[in-house]
Amino acid sequence: MQHETKKIVILGSTGSVGSQALEVIHRFPDQYQIVGLSANQNVSLLLKQAKTFKPKVIAMMDKAACVKVKERLKLLGPRFRKIQVLFGLEGLCQLAELAEADLVLTALVGSVGLKPTAQAIKKSKTIALANKETLVTAGSIIMDLARQHQAFIIPVDSEHSAIYQCLVGEDFASVRNLILTCSGGPFRKASQKFLEKAKAQDALKHPTWNMGQKISIDSATLMNKGLEIIEAHWLFSVDYAHIKVLVHPQSLVHSLVEFQDGSLKAQISQPTMKIPIQFAFSCPARQTNPDIQDLNLESLNQMTFNPPDLKRFPCLRLAREAGQAGGSAPTVLNAANEIAVELFLQDKIKFLQIPKIIQKSLSDHHLLADPTLEQIIQLDTQTKTKIQKQYSKK
Amino acid sequence: MQHETKKIVILGSTGSVGSQALEVIHRFPDQYQIVGLSANQNVSLLLKQAKTFKPKVIAMMDKAACVKVKERLKLLGPRFRKIQVLFGLEGLCQLAELAEADLVLTALVGSVGLKPTAQAIKKSKTIALANKETLVTAGSIIMDLARQHQAFIIPVDSEHSAIYQCLVGEDFASVRNLILTCSGGPFRKASQKFLEKAKAQDALKHPTWNMGQKISIDSATLMNKGLEIIEAHWLFSVDYAHIKVLVHPQSLVHSLVEFQDGSLKAQISQPTMKIPIQFAFSCPARQTNPDIQDLNLESLNQMTFNPPDLKRFPCLRLAREAGQAGGSAPTVLNAANEIAVELFLQDKIKFLQIPKIIQKSLSDHHLLADPTLEQIIQLDTQTKTKIQKQYSKK
Repeated sequence: MQHETKKIVILGSTGSVGSQALEVIHRFPDQYQIVGLSANQNVSLLLKQAKTFKPKVIAMMDKAACVKVKERLKLLGPRFRKIQVLFGLEGLCQLAELAEADLVLTALVGSVGLKPTAQAIKKSKTIALANKETLVTAGSIIMDLARQHQAFIIPVDSEHSAIYQCLVGEDFASVRNLILTCSGGPFRKASQKFLEKAKAQDALKHPTWNMGQKISIDSATLMNKGLEIIEAHWLFSVDYAHIKVLVHPQSLVHSLVEFQDGSLKAQISQPTMKIPIQFAFSCPARQTNPDIQDLNLESLNQMTFNPPDLKRFPCLRLAREAGQAGGSAPTVLNAANEIAVELFLQDKIKFLQIPKIIQKSLSDHHLLADPTLEQIIQLDTQTKTKIQKQYSKK
Repeated sequence: MQHETKKIVILGSTGSVGSQALEVIHRFPDQYQIVGLSANQNVSLLLKQAKTFKPKVIAMMDKAACVKVKERLKLLGPRFRKIQVLFGLEGLCQLAELAEADLVLTALVGSVGLKPTAQAIKKSKTIALANKETLVTAGSIIMDLARQHQAFIIPVDSEHSAIYQCLVGEDFASVRNLILTCSGGPFRKASQKFLEKAKAQDALKHPTWNMGQKISIDSATLMNKGLEIIEAHWLFSVDYAHIKVLVHPQSLVHSLVEFQDGSLKAQISQPTMKIPIQFAFSCPARQTNPDIQDLNLESLNQMTFNPPDLKRFPCLRLAREAGQAGGSAPTVLNAANEIAVELFLQDKIKFLQIPKIIQKSLSDHHLLADPTLEQIIQLDTQTKTKIQKQYSKK
């Protein structure tokens, strides 16, 4: 059987998901071909990736990094000199629209993913979505665009991939509840006292997943699960009342779907992002990848599932409330969270200030019921700038 | 939306699965209509069902029962006088072929289900298969017939329904392993000494499922799981080496599928046959049924999964070996088991004689590599008669 090679653009190829995606693609050279890569400013890793995967186009968010990449490519010989190098958000958007691409993996961190994702959708690309902030901040607009341009959005978040896998072949109208599992993060058992003094390095030690910095902090506050509730709402058109969360520290069951007839389906595997990444590339087919370890069935013993503690982890409650409020509320929630996490990583605020900053931003803002993409982008920037100003003074 | 009413025949309506199927149908009078019912000899229950569901045709295996049913129907008035009443295997086959029927639920016990199922398939009916012995004894022929006549076979066994649900929308070629769960039966923790003296009444106390007598004994010997391995092999075209069994006493995960990419899907629910029965009727849609209790998600804690003990439960090994031997071996396994279970229920043999009788029948018989339906039916009868003779002498 002859395979059509799928041509792939990765937005955010030097991050955790981006790098693992390249490892997957490396395993199946007949099936996938990289046509574009992008990074923020990690020049050396991006160049290493470019040497291996020989993309047609590269985009760097950072202008200086873009200049450096161009210079270094020249030294690699004529084949690499031909690679087009773009920069900034504009460059990212151009890359997302690349005519050759069949599939765009959006593995950017934060709301910066919004515009490039929208552009790729407008060109009817299949979107492998690893950037949850895009749907959190502008779910209604993105899903409308996808319907309008008949672009498939395949989730790469392990929880949403689990739900997507459980829903393959099912009627969305048959869904009664989505049950997102949650490892509980590094502070699952932490006392309130500990949380008061928690530092970034504590939060970065995740028990089951090896991830980027931003998502690691979001896992520690459980905001990650909160964002996932909003993401699930948009991806699967399920009301917030029917999206539940269970703390499952073993991270084997990646989420469950409960159907109208009382039957549930669960997706289960080793906690590796390679499975959801690969599934987004190959679905509905599935491929054997020697890099992915089999699940030891004995590990199914001792699984636990418990409700989350909303008192110690108010971010989960805030996210659900923002989702239910709708309109511009999730945009503000997400922007405030992004900047609060940055401030926490820089040791400028304490761990428990993260939810407080978010709560304040939410109560300060005037809800727009049906914001446009421009209004969302503006509100995102405004919210971030306002918090940044306030805390850089201190 | 207007629904097309699905017209249903139930073969074996007075048994456990048949009765529960009627309860499901009773809940959805706009969607399902009973056109035919059959029973062995339970006249009173069959008449009660006939009053409620007003079938066009009834078939009784037993001739005396057939006469009684006819008489009693006459007394019920003109509407019931018109019901056609058939008898014997011939009657069952005619009922299975009923022109009006869209779907035939085969809930008969034992290899008697073979011929009627084959007849229904030849008329391209959708088969809701609750009679595992049909596929065990003649899997190759039945599956060939189904392909030839484009008849869908939807499994009703909870394990196979679980697998079927997990495979909806998936490519069969993506399957790496099927993992059948097994409650372990009433003798899961029993010592060898206890098993030596075990009586039918001990075996009939199943910890999680409320079922008919034959399947309850099969659960106690684990032959039930053995038959299910063979059934799964035929239903899903998976090699025996890739069909595993895990003892899961909580009976919440009804089976799992492991895919080529290392991802597993599990189907989970309360242990009620109403879910697989209803799914077979409604799939790919799913319906809310107030009779089906929601799963309490807390029950997901404390689930265990362990390999079965093939020493204490040799039937599981015998079934796998017969399946792997192929040809007529599963026919002999199944026939010997049916009669051994009957003898055990009649207190004519001891519990541990069941596997011995089966083993002897298997080693005595000359394997037919590719038996015809007639040869299978003949071998089934021969095997049963031979054992019966031997033990009625005693």
